[in-house]
Amino acid sequence: MSDERYRRGLATIEQVMGEGGSEGLVSLAEDAPELARYAIEAFGELYADQALDVRTRELLTVAALTAMGNAPSQLKTHVGGALNAGCTEAEVVAAITQMYAYAGFPSALNGLTTALETFRERNEHRRGPG
Amino acid sequence: MSDERYRRGLATIEQVMGEGGSEGLVSLAEDAPELARYAIEAFGELYADQALDVRTRELLTVAALTAMGNAPSQLKTHVGGALNAGCTEAEVVAAITQMYAYAGFPSALNGLTTALETFRERNEHRRGPG
Amino acid sequence: MSDERYRRGLATIEQVMGEGGSEGLVSLAEDAPELARYAIEAFGELYADQALDVRTRELLTVAALTAMGNAPSQLKTHVGGALNAGCTEAEVVAAITQMYAYAGFPSALNGLTTALETFRERNEHRRGPG
Amino acid sequence: MSDERYRRGLATIEQVMGEGGSEGLVSLAEDAPELARYAIEAFGELYADQALDVRTRELLTVAALTAMGNAPSQLKTHVGGALNAGCTEAEVVAAITQMYAYAGFPSALNGLTTALETFRERNEHRRGPG
Amino acid sequence: MSDERYRRGLATIEQVMGEGGSEGLVSLAEDAPELARYAIEAFGELYADQALDVRTRELLTVAALTAMGNAPSQLKTHVGGALNAGCTEAEVVAAITQMYAYAGFPSALNGLTTALETFRERNEHRRGPG
Amino acid sequence: MSDERYRRGLATIEQVMGEGGSEGLVSLAEDAPELARYAIEAFGELYADQALDVRTRELLTVAALTAMGNAPSQLKTHVGGALNAGCTEAEVVAAITQMYAYAGFPSALNGLTTALETFRERNEHRRGPG
Repeated sequence: MSDERYRRGLATIEQVMGEGGSEGLVSLAEDAPELARYAIEAFGELYADQALDVRTRELLTVAALTAMGNAPSQLKTHVGGALNAGCTEAEVVAAITQMYAYAGFPSALNGLTTALETFRERNEHRRGPG
Repeated sequence: MSDERYRRGLATIEQVMGEGGSEGLVSLAEDAPELARYAIEAFGELYADQALDVRTRELLTVAALTAMGNAPSQLKTHVGGALNAGCTEAEVVAAITQMYAYAGFPSALNGLTTALETFRERNEHRRGPG
Repeated sequence: MSDERYRRGLATIEQVMGEGGSEGLVSLAEDAPELARYAIEAFGELYADQALDVRTRELLTVAALTAMGNAPSQLKTHVGGALNAGCTEAEVVAAITQMYAYAGFPSALNGLTTALETFRERNEHRRGPG
Repeated sequence: MSDERYRRGLATIEQVMGEGGSEGLVSLAEDAPELARYAIEAFGELYADQALDVRTRELLTVAALTAMGNAPSQLKTHVGGALNAGCTEAEVVAAITQMYAYAGFPSALNGLTTALETFRERNEHRRGPG
Repeated sequence: MSDERYRRGLATIEQVMGEGGSEGLVSLAEDAPELARYAIEAFGELYADQALDVRTRELLTVAALTAMGNAPSQLKTHVGGALNAGCTEAEVVAAITQMYAYAGFPSALNGLTTALETFRERNEHRRGPG
Repeated sequence: MSDERYRRGLATIEQVMGEGGSEGLVSLAEDAPELARYAIEAFGELYADQALDVRTRELLTVAALTAMGNAPSQLKTHVGGALNAGCTEAEVVAAITQMYAYAGFPSALNGLTTALETFRERNEHRRGPG
């Protein structure tokens, strides 16, 4: 049944992005229930396919969003997802660096800026306010 | 010295793409020596960084070129590179499939068509004319 | 159940694109079952939402694919879909023409060339070989 | 005469976007008179062609700008234009939602965010400071 | 009067692209008179502004179309225009080469391939069949 | 030796962008030494080729970044570079204006907004706080 797809999608997002990771899409569901549902279900379906592990999937998305260069907010989310899945910061930087060859320096540099922001926020959060 | 970068680039391309894999860029060097050299050296430098293995690098490029959707010839080359590096056809298909979520169905479907062509040519070639 | 989504998708495509309109995606399902299924189901789900009629949906897709400029084969399919849904050739031409203002003349002119080819093939087919 | 084109363009923009809707382009005319004039005249000419009504034209632009994903300010303007022309918020959301299939979720989600902001500002404005 | 803009546009195209250079757009005018007229007039208006000479304008267009990477046919036309305006082949190659830094190697390499084709056709044509 | 390339790149950037112009890339080198080095070296190598002068190279980049529309920060840098190289503000505006024909009005208008900001900051800076 369709509700199963939706639940699996939500569970996958929470697992990949961390607790609370689906809040953005869920809150969107008030104003655009179809788009929110499609996005949530797509996530669940893509990641259910075991042909690629989560770590690789997140790196692929980081690379593609860097190359496309017009979705910094989603890039940030997936940089977080890549780190959650066990990628090192050096791997994320290497994936973004490689994109200069396929999409030029501005896209790679802007992608890097977004990634460095994400690293900083996570490291600050981990250290806490103390 | 600069010639070392060039030689390393050529060697890397031949290693990743297979023997003869650098012929296209080398033949371009007659008409556009700078662009050919930049591309060859870039290849050598990116792949010398061990932060990501060749298999991952090739999948990242397959994903990015699929998402960008305007370089089918280069996508073909890197689908070949991904298979050479040990990716299965199923992994390549999964990487391209995932791109529908970030760049839409037309880009993913066109990327898939290019990949399937590459698979077919390689499989025919392997079987030989017999 | 999931098979229902798939069947509804197929039925929608056949209805919008004409008999045989889903053959391309169905034949793709041998090599990339997930991507084919996602595309077929997405079609069914989007068009089940009555907020926009089929004629408007097809024109929107014609406009977007013209503006993006990198999927002539899918543009051709949706020009056909727009005509099937009752759009006149003049409406399709006007939608494509408008895109020059948002994506430049090359995208609009290339979109127009694709549309004119589609018009010609349909008109020849209608007249028959006689 | 050329001044007629310009005046017709201004009048069309004010009619479609609402009173004051041409202020941005007019103020630009001090620094870039040609670009401002081209944009104003293009608007007048495109909308003078009756092959598509204003409502459809605005939806097409909303779809294309969502898919292209790099002009949020202009998208906002045209979401307003679509509502002025009689589109419901649900129709705008449906047009943007559909774009995920052609340009991916990030473009659709970012387009939606822009549209929801526009809806909110207009609704607040309508209610007044009361 | 409007016809003057159109005539000036046609004259500019013939001057920049060479005799017969406007045939493509003129023949398009049967099926899409507005788009053909807009494109022809835009050409005349842009080039009437003396802030940049024709040689620079053509190089700018070659660079932009290379970077965008989805309009090889128009790139070919403007490579010809650049050469007509007095650019050397080396200057065209340098402009295209530079684009790798802003749009990646695939766009630059594909732009170069298009330029080299144009060079070859013109050189063959100049030598004649003898 | 490789350090020579890097030093030449830094020197070229400082020469084209003005004193301090390489600070952004240099500070990036802490977090992403490879990408920073590639970008710095690329700059040096491209500008060492005398086939095009700095003024033309900067205008080409302004045009391409305007057309691509997703790197306003880099566009700002190169508008500055174009003015440093002797371009007038009118030439920069003309180059950006021309891009509407190849990439649509939104890209051209957004590029113009970025350029006008750069003009203003430089003019204020020149006048000083007095």
